[in-house]
Amino acid sequence: MQIAEQKSNGGVGIVQTRVLRVNLPPEGLVLENGVVLPELHVAYETYGQLAEDGANAVYICHALTGDAHVAGYHDASDRKPGWWDAMVGPGKGIDTNRFFVVCANVLGGCMGTTGPASIDPRTGRPYGSTFPAITTGDMVQVQCLLLQDLGVKRLAAVIGGSFGGMQVLEWSVRYPQMVARCICIASAMSLSAQALAFDIVGRQAIMADPDWTGGDYYDKAERPKRGLAQARMIGHITYLSSENMKRKFGREKRAGQAPRRRFATSFQVESYLDYQGAKFVDRFDANSYLHITEAMDVFDLAEKHASPAVAFARVNPEMRILVVALSSDWLFPPEQSLEVARALQQAGKHVSYCLLRSPYGHDAFLVEVEHLGEVVKTFIEASAPAPDAAVPPVPRRRTSRANSAQDHRLIAGRVRDGARVLDLGCGGGELLQALAAQRGVFGLGMDIDLENVLETIRRGLDVFQCDLDAGLGMIPDGSYDYAVLSQTLQVVRFEWYDTPNIHLFTLRDFKMLCARDAIKIVDICCLPHSRIDALLIKMAGYNLGADRVIITITRDHDRKAQNET
Amino acid sequence: MQIAEQKSNGGVGIVQTRVLRVNLPPEGLVLENGVVLPELHVAYETYGQLAEDGANAVYICHALTGDAHVAGYHDASDRKPGWWDAMVGPGKGIDTNRFFVVCANVLGGCMGTTGPASIDPRTGRPYGSTFPAITTGDMVQVQCLLLQDLGVKRLAAVIGGSFGGMQVLEWSVRYPQMVARCICIASAMSLSAQALAFDIVGRQAIMADPDWTGGDYYDKAERPKRGLAQARMIGHITYLSSENMKRKFGREKRAGQAPRRRFATSFQVESYLDYQGAKFVDRFDANSYLHITEAMDVFDLAEKHASPAVAFARVNPEMRILVVALSSDWLFPPEQSLEVARALQQAGKHVSYCLLRSPYGHDAFLVEVEHLGEVVKTFIEASAPAPDAAVPPVPRRRTSRANSAQDHRLIAGRVRDGARVLDLGCGGGELLQALAAQRGVFGLGMDIDLENVLETIRRGLDVFQCDLDAGLGMIPDGSYDYAVLSQTLQVVRFEWYDTPNIHLFTLRDFKMLCARDAIKIVDICCLPHSRIDALLIKMAGYNLGADRVIITITRDHDRKAQNET
Repeated sequence: MQIAEQKSNGGVGIVQTRVLRVNLPPEGLVLENGVVLPELHVAYETYGQLAEDGANAVYICHALTGDAHVAGYHDASDRKPGWWDAMVGPGKGIDTNRFFVVCANVLGGCMGTTGPASIDPRTGRPYGSTFPAITTGDMVQVQCLLLQDLGVKRLAAVIGGSFGGMQVLEWSVRYPQMVARCICIASAMSLSAQALAFDIVGRQAIMADPDWTGGDYYDKAERPKRGLAQARMIGHITYLSSENMKRKFGREKRAGQAPRRRFATSFQVESYLDYQGAKFVDRFDANSYLHITEAMDVFDLAEKHASPAVAFARVNPEMRILVVALSSDWLFPPEQSLEVARALQQAGKHVSYCLLRSPYGHDAFLVEVEHLGEVVKTFIEASAPAPDAAVPPVPRRRTSRANSAQDHRLIAGRVRDGARVLDLGCGGGELLQALAAQRGVFGLGMDIDLENVLETIRRGLDVFQCDLDAGLGMIPDGSYDYAVLSQTLQVVRFEWYDTPNIHLFTLRDFKMLCARDAIKIVDICCLPHSRIDALLIKMAGYNLGADRVIITITRDHDRKAQNET
Repeated sequence: MQIAEQKSNGGVGIVQTRVLRVNLPPEGLVLENGVVLPELHVAYETYGQLAEDGANAVYICHALTGDAHVAGYHDASDRKPGWWDAMVGPGKGIDTNRFFVVCANVLGGCMGTTGPASIDPRTGRPYGSTFPAITTGDMVQVQCLLLQDLGVKRLAAVIGGSFGGMQVLEWSVRYPQMVARCICIASAMSLSAQALAFDIVGRQAIMADPDWTGGDYYDKAERPKRGLAQARMIGHITYLSSENMKRKFGREKRAGQAPRRRFATSFQVESYLDYQGAKFVDRFDANSYLHITEAMDVFDLAEKHASPAVAFARVNPEMRILVVALSSDWLFPPEQSLEVARALQQAGKHVSYCLLRSPYGHDAFLVEVEHLGEVVKTFIEASAPAPDAAVPPVPRRRTSRANSAQDHRLIAGRVRDGARVLDLGCGGGELLQALAAQRGVFGLGMDIDLENVLETIRRGLDVFQCDLDAGLGMIPDGSYDYAVLSQTLQVVRFEWYDTPNIHLFTLRDFKMLCARDAIKIVDICCLPHSRIDALLIKMAGYNLGADRVIITITRDHDRKAQNET
């Protein structure tokens, strides 16, 4: 696509990064460790208009080395737009026709917000080695102060990927009343040991660079470019999947001459890493890299709490949270996103989870926005859950869920008001919506199909995208009053195991299974297909002429205990 | 276990590393790039005794930073034995009561074999920056020269893991007549782009160290310790699985004081990396690290050939090769080992493949030798394939393979002499052995169960350990004359997908499947269970009273073409 075309093609156009001197209390900005910064500048950009009622603001948290320049161009001559231009703009995932979007460079950064390269007003010289240690909490505090100054009192949503996702989680517990929705992409409650290790080596590379000089290099001729480039190269390896590196470079070699220095190879991957390193040191400051990675490394939402679920106790019960994982991400692997979702679910909060298939590794949230944009848009624009009538009709996809209105009525008749209900294989969420409307249940759907998940999210309901067989283990025993398996059991057993046939089984088979596994049948309701079926059922007892059966089962504690002894 | 106990417990005892000045032709050692080394010293160790017939020698290729000290202790006061002591010793995986075992430090190394720190006899000073680039081929050439000087004319086996596995593959094509068996563990035909990238960053860290001084630091006060330590730390992260790092360190912190320098964290993983880095620079030379990683990076067995299979054309058809992969290895992932095995299989060579389950990552071949030792021992001690009578009886494991003698006879009756036969779900290889004995077939078994795989290897047969559903795709169309699925089909469909029941199906079901999928039935042979069954079959036609059926099928090209149009 031509740049001119891109620029005219639905983007936010020309934008400016502005720098605000943020209003601070007289004592200055007090950091979590008690240290005070006397002055705070924040570089930020905004897109779209703040609504009269102030309810349409979205804050974007950037990742490790990002900046405030999310979308559009600073100048007509710019060759590249902002870092998430594919996500942010008119009609895009975060629709600037609808939302007032704000993004700011983080505290400690080097893109305009106060950081180690800034002048300390007390000395008139760059902070350098005297810049205090900062935390993710400090960064979010600064974001909140900026929004206050911009007149934003609450956020329709806060969204971020990678380290940005950690900031989102921090928002959810630090300012729970201020945020309606949180979107946490390819992130975690804390870094894994492996990710920590890579950061550690990266920092050591910077500190081993003789040009770092303890952090006070701003008045020197040289900056610690080699160390910073090395840290960046390590980072870049972790942002890509191995599969993606194989596709991009494989073992291809540069055409032409041999490498210009000894022990440099002619593999294209070396050129790529060199290029990434060189490009990075031109725009980034080594001390900022040290400070921000350190803040990321020590971020640990669960650390001070008995369990991850307790950490999320402060999340507003009205808040809706979406956790998105990327399948080939090995820096923030999907299991870590699932942990976030599970902890929120266990804390009784409204949370949904999506796993997007992508071969691109961690970077996918930046480079492959097509599906992610749809997921974000669906979640961020979804209505709050409401009675059936109020929800716009959604096209039906699961034809196998036939006779659903009757089923839903009958199932609703078997569920207590306000109960917690798990709908396994929830399809587009029709049943959960009916149960929410008729019984006021607190529901969670599970489905493996992304379209079904999106449809459920569109209804304002909570849903986890997962394979039932893999996913059920994560639901703690006793955390739901009812689990519904509506027209799903046959799919779980067979179709999910990749055999082509759907094997139906009889009520008698099911009763045998229950007997074997110490399951107590509470109630059986056979649904006739026709009047003749109804007559047959009446004449012959159940299981004759019925084409569907609703069975209520419960654990048979006595039998189970017996079996176990 | 106490050291004293370890030392007395079946080890090789006290051993010495010896250094041999290897006999070279008058022109010196000519390297692959044409450069000549005037003199060659090789540091090596041996264990066990060379047999009279010289047929029991085993050469061990060490990995990147290993040395000649494989097993035993140099001194009674040593706290640790050689690097593969768990594998090499009396009665162990490589049994020193049976084999004469040799291992030498590689060319370019720093543990006694000629390398960059050695004195160049032409100048009387260390080679340093003048040490020539070396290849894996050069290293193997040196190993061969050493063995000649030691009076070893052929090898019962050559074995190695990681970069050692690459040397093994080089052996297989460079000296194909000299080696009877090859064992290639956790290795590849070439490094992946991701693994290359890590090596590149590691080398750059060394070269960025001001103490490297272009490689001529041997007469300086300082050595490039920081750069080398960083390279080692990066390497160490790649040797462990993420899961293993999580178990070992998680986010645990050092007890006691805060870190002694800024931007060092108190995470235990940082202490671990620091320790590994520090320990390494005490024993290893930075220039050797540069040279050996470079040799590993450029190693590419398939590069100059049309396909990986062509690369292995030179392998001796009598040679037997075992490729072992480790499940959680992400530096040399199992797919790369499987590629090696597949290429050898496509080249028509004798190759077996095992996938060992381990949570320890790449390092598992060093740290978790229990299963690996069994696999190595089984392969290295297996008889050559021979008629039934000559093979020691092996305990039967698969009771489901009932009536096997009769089945095998009947199947053998349907297979051409000298045909290529794939036995899917081969169990312990009984059928393949019968076919080899009676029909002289070139067979390959496939089975998912390690015990079955070992039993097949014990018979001297080729076998791939893989899931049939995943593994069949790797067998090129038309590369076998027959595929046998003996008492396996029902297991593939159901038991392998983890459902508890084995679902048997009728001959009629199978005929319907064939009709649907354009499979032509050549011949049906029903096997009665008893005389009464035989009578029933005679009276009623097939499929009455038979408890087993042998069906010969082939592709129905006409029907298939029809279906496709």
